[in-house]
Amino acid sequence: MSSRAIEFWIGYGSTYSYLSAMRIEKLAQASGVTVEWKPFNIRALMVEKGLPAGPFMPRPEKLAYMWRDLERRARRRGLPYARPPLYPVDTQQTVRVAFLAAREDWCGPFSRKVFEMNFVEGRSMGAPGNLEAALAEIGRDAERTIRRAHEQDIEEGLAAQTRRAIDLGMFGSPHFRVGEELFWGDDRLEDAIEWCLTGTLSATAGV
Amino acid sequence: MSSRAIEFWIGYGSTYSYLSAMRIEKLAQASGVTVEWKPFNIRALMVEKGLPAGPFMPRPEKLAYMWRDLERRARRRGLPYARPPLYPVDTQQTVRVAFLAAREDWCGPFSRKVFEMNFVEGRSMGAPGNLEAALAEIGRDAERTIRRAHEQDIEEGLAAQTRRAIDLGMFGSPHFRVGEELFWGDDRLEDAIEWCLTGTLSATAGV
Repeated sequence: MSSRAIEFWIGYGSTYSYLSAMRIEKLAQASGVTVEWKPFNIRALMVEKGLPAGPFMPRPEKLAYMWRDLERRARRRGLPYARPPLYPVDTQQTVRVAFLAAREDWCGPFSRKVFEMNFVEGRSMGAPGNLEAALAEIGRDAERTIRRAHEQDIEEGLAAQTRRAIDLGMFGSPHFRVGEELFWGDDRLEDAIEWCLTGTLSATAGV
Repeated sequence: MSSRAIEFWIGYGSTYSYLSAMRIEKLAQASGVTVEWKPFNIRALMVEKGLPAGPFMPRPEKLAYMWRDLERRARRRGLPYARPPLYPVDTQQTVRVAFLAAREDWCGPFSRKVFEMNFVEGRSMGAPGNLEAALAEIGRDAERTIRRAHEQDIEEGLAAQTRRAIDLGMFGSPHFRVGEELFWGDDRLEDAIEWCLTGTLSATAGV
């Protein structure tokens, strides 16, 4: 990793990751920082930790808050938003394609497309045909790409990256990693970029 | 509640509430917003929801992250910080005094004192003698105040306020409430104040 790079550890079932996926490259670019996409299997992480798919599911009041908060934060970030019809979603195919995409350097456009479909257009991640549509719409050969994404080196690479996420102490998505420093949540993206540039955080005036 | 007031629902066992307790009045005052302190018994809320005291305790990697994040956020907020020697802490006496203090309009100075003791000075909330010391240091009669804080009207008032927090969908601390709108976490304090002033959130430039 170069000294001006931020690792973006992203699980595709995470709602707040929509916000980060849409804005990280613009923000990073404005600061001269490179983004390294690190897709990992958040479902496998949850299973290993004994947590449910959809971490908010057992706590209805927290789930209700999350939807309202996500809507408000999208507005704050200037992003379109329509509440997804389905939650949690099945991300097992999506994350395999994302891992392949990161290797081939098209994970940004791919991720923005699948998140936009899910969080703006009502086309659920994991629903039949949507992954193929996403690939076609960003100009990739869907059938060939999905077949490639299920080959052994990709499966093993994704499993190793997920293992690495857990070993690094990650517990959700998004995480940003700068050197040894870990930041969690879209709320910390600006902090991660500042850390990347200066190795510290400045006190924000007046607060 | 006036149209320019923000309710500050605070549980004293919450680590991130340190940040909010220290900065909310300064921030609100600068915006012409009134703060209404609403102490509630976060331990009772956790018990009702079947959650452990110290919500991070069952997840060591999340607990480790929280401490590092809290330290960084304190720096970001320009606040002093030293990792508390004890966690979780017993807040049962503190919250009773806080509820009384809110009734009598000295909850701000009291809260800042007990949080500063816990998060800066290594004098744990709930440890013998510290509540008395906190009261004395802000110029209150400790013995009389603690006795008063255990009288029936305070016990019942606190129980009712805790019930209200749960009924309003709260699940942690701090929560900020503006009209019907609920915000959770120190990260949302600025949003809550903006909502209080404008009834919406503006898009932040460039993100």
